[in-house]
Amino acid sequence: MKELYYLGGVLKLKLFKGFAATALCTAMIVSGVAYSQQADAGPPGHSKAKVENVIFMIPDGYSTSFATNYRIFKGEDTVLDSMLVGMMKTNSADNWVTDSAAAGTAMATGVKTNNGMISVTPDGETVETILEAASDAGKSTGLVATSTITHATPAVFASHVQSRGSETDIALQLVNEIDVLLGGGKANFLPSSLGGNQAERNLLEESLADGYAVAENRNELLALSKKDKKVLGLFADDGMAPELDRDQTNEPSLAEMTDTALQSLSSNKKGFFLMVEGSQIDWAGHANDAAWAMKDSEAFEEAVEEALAFAKKDKKTLVIVAGDHDTGGMSVGGYGEYLAKADILHDVTATGDFMAAELNSDRSNVKAVIKEFTNLDLTDEEAERIKKAPENSTALTINQIVSERAYVGWSTTAHTGVDVPIYAYGPNSSTFSGLLDNTDMPKRIAEAMKIEFGN
Amino acid sequence: MKELYYLGGVLKLKLFKGFAATALCTAMIVSGVAYSQQADAGPPGHSKAKVENVIFMIPDGYSTSFATNYRIFKGEDTVLDSMLVGMMKTNSADNWVTDSAAAGTAMATGVKTNNGMISVTPDGETVETILEAASDAGKSTGLVATSTITHATPAVFASHVQSRGSETDIALQLVNEIDVLLGGGKANFLPSSLGGNQAERNLLEESLADGYAVAENRNELLALSKKDKKVLGLFADDGMAPELDRDQTNEPSLAEMTDTALQSLSSNKKGFFLMVEGSQIDWAGHANDAAWAMKDSEAFEEAVEEALAFAKKDKKTLVIVAGDHDTGGMSVGGYGEYLAKADILHDVTATGDFMAAELNSDRSNVKAVIKEFTNLDLTDEEAERIKKAPENSTALTINQIVSERAYVGWSTTAHTGVDVPIYAYGPNSSTFSGLLDNTDMPKRIAEAMKIEFGN
Repeated sequence: MKELYYLGGVLKLKLFKGFAATALCTAMIVSGVAYSQQADAGPPGHSKAKVENVIFMIPDGYSTSFATNYRIFKGEDTVLDSMLVGMMKTNSADNWVTDSAAAGTAMATGVKTNNGMISVTPDGETVETILEAASDAGKSTGLVATSTITHATPAVFASHVQSRGSETDIALQLVNEIDVLLGGGKANFLPSSLGGNQAERNLLEESLADGYAVAENRNELLALSKKDKKVLGLFADDGMAPELDRDQTNEPSLAEMTDTALQSLSSNKKGFFLMVEGSQIDWAGHANDAAWAMKDSEAFEEAVEEALAFAKKDKKTLVIVAGDHDTGGMSVGGYGEYLAKADILHDVTATGDFMAAELNSDRSNVKAVIKEFTNLDLTDEEAERIKKAPENSTALTINQIVSERAYVGWSTTAHTGVDVPIYAYGPNSSTFSGLLDNTDMPKRIAEAMKIEFGN
Repeated sequence: MKELYYLGGVLKLKLFKGFAATALCTAMIVSGVAYSQQADAGPPGHSKAKVENVIFMIPDGYSTSFATNYRIFKGEDTVLDSMLVGMMKTNSADNWVTDSAAAGTAMATGVKTNNGMISVTPDGETVETILEAASDAGKSTGLVATSTITHATPAVFASHVQSRGSETDIALQLVNEIDVLLGGGKANFLPSSLGGNQAERNLLEESLADGYAVAENRNELLALSKKDKKVLGLFADDGMAPELDRDQTNEPSLAEMTDTALQSLSSNKKGFFLMVEGSQIDWAGHANDAAWAMKDSEAFEEAVEEALAFAKKDKKTLVIVAGDHDTGGMSVGGYGEYLAKADILHDVTATGDFMAAELNSDRSNVKAVIKEFTNLDLTDEEAERIKKAPENSTALTINQIVSERAYVGWSTTAHTGVDVPIYAYGPNSSTFSGLLDNTDMPKRIAEAMKIEFGN
């Protein structure tokens, strides 16, 4: 209990510190208005000073509709609102609608590939990533995600495989190569998950032997110090929990992982490259789960606040934020009405998946369950829709009803091809203005860092 | 026939001229890449030189999804792609999802009002518009639209009424006040439409008496010369035709109206303020008619090309382009698939409304009609959906099927609240970068023109 109490104290300090830094930072990065008015005076974004550190943050699946709905949910302008600089095209080599593997490959390597492929060309040829180029320049590197750390978006920065499904192959390529790895997917690093003659390897133990600090829960992560320059933190066997359902005594938040990564990486005087993914915004989109989408957008914003606090103090750090694609064809409003009510999603305290699992076998408790976790009184008709839903779409039906009540529209459970916003802060941030292609991102990051980058 | 032949010759010359100017202009305004690289050197957009002329172009209902789908439809980057500078919040005073009256009021006056109201505060108080401020500064003024010229978006720039439905009141406020008025809505200017003691007035005849050139069809418009400084052109009793269904011998295109307006207005050495609306992109969105949306986006782009050609030559003209809101919750893809095929909409040669009107009484010719106007072979199931559709949603059902085939998603037949892109070209265009509110638009335009603007 003492340890818990102590850790609670640390957490409060961290939260307070983060809050104060954010307030300062928000004041400093100023609104779009002030920014424009000061354009001639040369705000930080127009500086072409060499960037030592890059924090590349990817809210997976986050398009303008997520940004607008999240503003409504929050009730005021968001941190990202003040950082908008441009928009980005998302198509892959073989499809106007990309998946995260091809989208990430473009954003990590500057080369378009086919959906499903991880940092190889459509012909299977390996292409250098911006993280690898930064590493070659002597910088430390880190990957943070709330999915498995071997999932497509983190994977593209430091591995090369034909198919995104090869997560254990990806684990083998990541381990002992990246200084800080934080996320889910522990199972992919343990014996038996690795196939063939690798089946006996335990990559966690190997990392420990290679000098990595290993954390397997939130307390262990928060107990790390700046001296731990190499960290492997894996907090769930598969993906981590949605922010709505997260057990805070077990799993860290994205902001906490970001803060830890920055502490560890910033000790390298040659700088660092850190990628932070808000992985589950995409999963929420696939599930058409509006509350999950908002809550994970909030968790992502808190991580952005950590990055901005660091960048503001450091002055040589570029923070660049862009989703890889839209998920769900989300809209702000829908259903034939002139209404948008994402703010009511504050009353939702669980994902649709969680609520579906709470239903009893005949689903007779559907009204009580939905009332408990959403504060919505279902109509008889709505209750019937959930009762009659096939087993594999019960959660989707719950999410559709909640979305209808919040006037959050969806056109699909897949990705869409709409351009997504680019946000940036720090030196060279103005070079991300206008309409860019996803392949432009790593090239401009390399230019900002003044490092060699081949593709 | 001679006259027609001659007019055809003029048209070809115009088109060629427009095309050449566009090619030059596209090369000049450069891509986002070159623009950013030249930022320090000070490209035209960063010039703070006084703007003499403003062309404010509003593609009604045009959000990022329209922009991306139109790029797929076109098969290459669009003219607007190279002009992207920022994004705009669209909410009205009383709703996250605005209508065009409140959206236009914000964009014309800098003041938010309630949905439905035309350039008055929520309390009904008249507020100055940017067009009125420009007029007070001695500039000429013009409004061009493909809706009735008394429709919400043009109306907000030069009239003040409690309800957008009062189109004849709006007509009375526009007439003899605006130098160039081009669009639809002739009925609102004729005797009997005007109520009460105004019922006998014929505003067309009054305008003619007041020195206006009056045009009632395309030929009459194209026959106008630069000497006609005051022009009233009304080309349809109600709204003009969708570009897909337009009778080119009767109604001018939006580009032709824009070109004529620029000819007439540019003779004033004190400059001009011109608003050009692509009105029917919104109507296509309401109808979920993807082909109509693409074809009217194309017509709007051709009008933008006219504006850019003028601005490039003039050098003191600011072209600013922003939709007032999204319509339809359009998505790029949808229906659970990773596909987007807006390019197949080139084969669609009529609106859903037109096709619905071609069906015989038992709709037995549905497959033939859809084949004729879309080149799609309907499945039996699709044909049944159209046959069984209620009378008032036959066109919508046709449009839904065409949208499904093109993988253009929709979440509503109403507006949505998503932020929309801002595009700009010319001196001061960089002052529209970042995330702006719709109320920022007229204020920044006034600053660019260095004119008094009160709100």
